[in-house]
Amino acid sequence: MGSGMLGQPDAETGDITRGELQLATRNHGMPLEALRHDITPVGLHYLLIHYDIPAVDPAAWRLELGGTVRRALTLSLEDLRARPAVTVPVTMECAGNGRAGMSPRTLSQPWLLEAVGTAEWTGTPLAALLEDAGPADGSVEVVFTGDDRGIEGGTEQLYERSLTLEQARRSEVLLAYGVNGAPLPAQHGFPLRLLVPGWYGMTSVKWLRRITVVDEPFTGYQQTRAYRYRQRSEDTGEPVTRMAPRSLMVPPGIPDFFSRRRYLPAGPCLLEGRAWSGWGPITTVEFSDDAGATWQPAAVEAARGRHAWQRWSLRWQPAEPGERQLCCRATDAAGNTQPAEPGWNLGGYSNNAVHRVDVTVRAASRRG
Amino acid sequence: MGSGMLGQPDAETGDITRGELQLATRNHGMPLEALRHDITPVGLHYLLIHYDIPAVDPAAWRLELGGTVRRALTLSLEDLRARPAVTVPVTMECAGNGRAGMSPRTLSQPWLLEAVGTAEWTGTPLAALLEDAGPADGSVEVVFTGDDRGIEGGTEQLYERSLTLEQARRSEVLLAYGVNGAPLPAQHGFPLRLLVPGWYGMTSVKWLRRITVVDEPFTGYQQTRAYRYRQRSEDTGEPVTRMAPRSLMVPPGIPDFFSRRRYLPAGPCLLEGRAWSGWGPITTVEFSDDAGATWQPAAVEAARGRHAWQRWSLRWQPAEPGERQLCCRATDAAGNTQPAEPGWNLGGYSNNAVHRVDVTVRAASRRG
Repeated sequence: MGSGMLGQPDAETGDITRGELQLATRNHGMPLEALRHDITPVGLHYLLIHYDIPAVDPAAWRLELGGTVRRALTLSLEDLRARPAVTVPVTMECAGNGRAGMSPRTLSQPWLLEAVGTAEWTGTPLAALLEDAGPADGSVEVVFTGDDRGIEGGTEQLYERSLTLEQARRSEVLLAYGVNGAPLPAQHGFPLRLLVPGWYGMTSVKWLRRITVVDEPFTGYQQTRAYRYRQRSEDTGEPVTRMAPRSLMVPPGIPDFFSRRRYLPAGPCLLEGRAWSGWGPITTVEFSDDAGATWQPAAVEAARGRHAWQRWSLRWQPAEPGERQLCCRATDAAGNTQPAEPGWNLGGYSNNAVHRVDVTVRAASRRG
Repeated sequence: MGSGMLGQPDAETGDITRGELQLATRNHGMPLEALRHDITPVGLHYLLIHYDIPAVDPAAWRLELGGTVRRALTLSLEDLRARPAVTVPVTMECAGNGRAGMSPRTLSQPWLLEAVGTAEWTGTPLAALLEDAGPADGSVEVVFTGDDRGIEGGTEQLYERSLTLEQARRSEVLLAYGVNGAPLPAQHGFPLRLLVPGWYGMTSVKWLRRITVVDEPFTGYQQTRAYRYRQRSEDTGEPVTRMAPRSLMVPPGIPDFFSRRRYLPAGPCLLEGRAWSGWGPITTVEFSDDAGATWQPAAVEAARGRHAWQRWSLRWQPAEPGERQLCCRATDAAGNTQPAEPGWNLGGYSNNAVHRVDVTVRAASRRG
């Protein structure tokens, strides 16, 4: 999940404020070398936590499903585990991924590119539970309430987001209690989280305590103030929903500790990475070794699941030592392509500009 | 582990550079609410990785133990697991924890306070392995070489650190292949890491591939340039070794998303946290609710192990609504106490100043 602090002063690209640092040291990114894993180990998956990680007692915990339903339900973790279970690989990305590449930027979590991960989530489909409760005529949305409490935009709140009834009934939407074969860890929403494949992570509410069917659109902070594409603060804006296409590469060679610049020997080099989109499968990934002046296609593999990223690879051989900027860009089946430069919006959402990696190619014999 | 980039330009306290942000988005801190756990879940334990997380094939992997020994050893992971195993809770902290609180600061990982964690590590004692190899007369140190390669201070290197033979033979020093009951995850050094309880994390070399007994002191970058307490770059400096005493508190109440300021209702409040020192058990933790003007003792529990942090707690009742600065400070059995203000050194190591948490106490009836 990501968030804009609407109403906060903007910052110019360049230095990062102390406030942003406080978030960057709490919220974990996925180091890009972890793109080599089909399934991201839990401790390397990105994490964005708006307030504090709550302590939940699983024995006392119950999920309340109520609102405009014919039969309100109260479910224990055991009740949920006794229902039909599915396990699916899902790529999840923070809506704020790339925010620190926008200028000026709203003050929030200053992600560069690393707010992503793919995990195998286990849970039970939401649709059947909603069916059991029976939304009354006139129901329009379903509100998901987490157990994490804080203040945002001057409002004290539990973290809450909604889906339309139609979105909530999609077959891929799960109530997940497991990840990568184990119970959810505290930081991923123990004991239960929503999982909405294809959408940015803010939708997949963690530490679920309550699901409420409502007959009027939800107007909470995270729905109507945060997570909207706006150019000016007075705009209503369009809601942030599905993930825009993005490709990332495993940075080749070895890094300089501080600058993170990459060094590699001249000679054949296998480049690889992952690409994904919430709008459909990835159809092409292209690669450039001249800062985007010319492009060549990479090989793109099938996904492990409809909502999991796809591996891409390319054998590259730099002709001679020197400085290069390597780039990759993806296009999805809906025809969306990554732009050369960041788009801009007030909340700093969905910056899916081309991934650029500066490298120094050294003579092949060099081994410092 | 932490590192100073000696020779890099300094930065004044205030904004954080883009270079520092690149490290902050890779390296994971422990959100301070996780201080409530005796044993930190693996995905919340701090991580500092100098270069990239290497991909190691455990079947092909071998540990080489050589140098000035009578019998060089080559050990598989199975060989190591067949040896006597111990499991111990150990608190590990990055030497750079608190670096972002120094002014001016060397450009490196800009930790605030969150570079710590306590895990239950499983491994086999190093001393017996050294005994099997038999250091030759005149051996003085043991060099530990990791599999993570990068460039630092202009030098291409595998991450390497040494211990004196005497330090290496201490009974608590382990070669660890497990953490919290599972194999090491990639980011914690899979398949094998050194574990030196009581010392800052840079000592506990991850992704171990080679142990070399040497008859001259090791002069590698991480030993003689980084991780030394210096006032000027031309100083030789003293080596960074054991952890200075530190106490941290679970920030009470609820946070503001961006500022992380804490809000809590007037009325009784249980404050808790953890304290540790590499120089001996914690003897006292003191608490202040007036920015350090007056102090009162907190209750301090016994540790789960000689090298694990100790829980402290205190029932606090703010007299009336208003702004407060809460502080805690620890003293260890060797008589070391946390200072009111940060000390300073070029590498930004061991800033163990008093933990300060600004809170707003609200009237008890208030529930926004």
